[in-house]
Amino acid sequence: MFGLIPKDEKFFKLFKDMTENIIEGAKLLKDMLDNFENPAESQRNIKELEHKGDAITHSIIKKLNTTFVTPLDREDIYELASKLDDILDLIDVCAQRVIMYNVESIPPQAKSLGFIILQSCIVVDKAVAMLGKQSNEQLFALCVEINALENEADRVCREAISVLFDEEKDPFQLIKWKEIYETLEKATDKCEDAANILESVVVKNA
Amino acid sequence: MFGLIPKDEKFFKLFKDMTENIIEGAKLLKDMLDNFENPAESQRNIKELEHKGDAITHSIIKKLNTTFVTPLDREDIYELASKLDDILDLIDVCAQRVIMYNVESIPPQAKSLGFIILQSCIVVDKAVAMLGKQSNEQLFALCVEINALENEADRVCREAISVLFDEEKDPFQLIKWKEIYETLEKATDKCEDAANILESVVVKNA
Amino acid sequence: MFGLIPKDEKFFKLFKDMTENIIEGAKLLKDMLDNFENPAESQRNIKELEHKGDAITHSIIKKLNTTFVTPLDREDIYELASKLDDILDLIDVCAQRVIMYNVESIPPQAKSLGFIILQSCIVVDKAVAMLGKQSNEQLFALCVEINALENEADRVCREAISVLFDEEKDPFQLIKWKEIYETLEKATDKCEDAANILESVVVKNA
Repeated sequence: MFGLIPKDEKFFKLFKDMTENIIEGAKLLKDMLDNFENPAESQRNIKELEHKGDAITHSIIKKLNTTFVTPLDREDIYELASKLDDILDLIDVCAQRVIMYNVESIPPQAKSLGFIILQSCIVVDKAVAMLGKQSNEQLFALCVEINALENEADRVCREAISVLFDEEKDPFQLIKWKEIYETLEKATDKCEDAANILESVVVKNA
Repeated sequence: MFGLIPKDEKFFKLFKDMTENIIEGAKLLKDMLDNFENPAESQRNIKELEHKGDAITHSIIKKLNTTFVTPLDREDIYELASKLDDILDLIDVCAQRVIMYNVESIPPQAKSLGFIILQSCIVVDKAVAMLGKQSNEQLFALCVEINALENEADRVCREAISVLFDEEKDPFQLIKWKEIYETLEKATDKCEDAANILESVVVKNA
Repeated sequence: MFGLIPKDEKFFKLFKDMTENIIEGAKLLKDMLDNFENPAESQRNIKELEHKGDAITHSIIKKLNTTFVTPLDREDIYELASKLDDILDLIDVCAQRVIMYNVESIPPQAKSLGFIILQSCIVVDKAVAMLGKQSNEQLFALCVEINALENEADRVCREAISVLFDEEKDPFQLIKWKEIYETLEKATDKCEDAANILESVVVKNA
């Protein structure tokens, strides 16, 4: 079925723009957490990418409104665009929380989560690039990889929170860091949501 | 496409009943937060509206089961009804939290959020009223407005929580108010979810 | 419509396997909370069932990829499988939280929630068993029952948290138990989500 999709691949191009933008955001977040040099500037840069992402999403919706034949079902294009949008939104929320909670340094577990988020975004980009091009098996394998990264993020987050409850004596600090860890973990959940849409699109068009 | 919808506009009438009921609930919540005179009674009144909302949702589903031709896809009618239902559910949860946490007074940021929720419900009502009637552009503009209100609620909520961490010395109070602010903000998220469904319905039928 | 579904009922068989596995998990969780004898072992057993559930979900998706005619829409089968999967995921998260937070004993409200979760999973199993077999009215009645159980869980959870705020003097303990109660309640939300899918599938095929 996918082999027969129309030549107008502009939607795929827009999705590619989107996932590349997401990777950019994930790199900035990782760098913000790793180096923590000018976090306020990192946050502003991530916010800018988030606005750029919104603009791409908007282009996709506009295009849907003026295109008669689309390579996938209209609602799937819409759904995928909005799930991808959610990933960068969450990356932005993570950066915001770090700034808003005025944290002083970044514990290693938060850096690990930043690393996993970036890995996951890279795999999402690969999976989206395969839409309409490759065998379903390869796309499924990438979705499995995204799920595995989400599981790993979940494990790191759980351990980080356990450590917090063991070591943090200030309840206010505990509340802040618990939420930051959980928000970081949620970014990988959003990658998994996008993978689930990809999987269901492929299943539907099988 | 929407110009050609069948004359049986009963679904649109039921959706209108639903959004008017939601506005009623949002007004009660705003009044509860602004005046805080008899919060327990406000909460009971909101709960009553929430039951009324459930009944309307149920009528829509019943109607779906007995109607052969519907003005929109069956699953979209179902989806939209359930997202609208979620808005009033959240308004009810907000009122419940205020009662359950036995708060003594309402800070200005919570009042601002009550105001934004009401604005957002009014725009949702306008957007739903346009289904099947007006140009897509106007409906899209209303969805943009709902998104802007959600962003504003998000900003107010973030600032309110920052203030909490700066000023509140009692961790129990901080936990309570953090959750109330977040629940108020979530009500505007639910308006945005409804806007997203409206947008996708319009895209689908473009 | 459902009366005319193809004879190949393997999907229904797989869904039945899934809901029976979910009931198994809910029983283990209830037992873990009621007796609290070897919670770490209970948690491991629940995790095992969760992996088994993933395998069944995977079989359903594989089957979707190789089956030409399905008894329901492909996307509905996919959606229902993923919502059922979420129930057991949440049961697993509940067990994990109990272990991770190193709790010493289980308060009666958590036991009540464990009981309600099991009831709800039993009704989900009944509702899924009716897909393609019985009258819509009966399936709707079961969905109403699942909603009622969710409401009851919500009430128990709210009361439990009120009690926490009244009696717990340690903010760290309050944070832990608030989250455990909320996670238990969320498991019944996931049952409701599955009921909503069932309801929408029936509406769609009415």
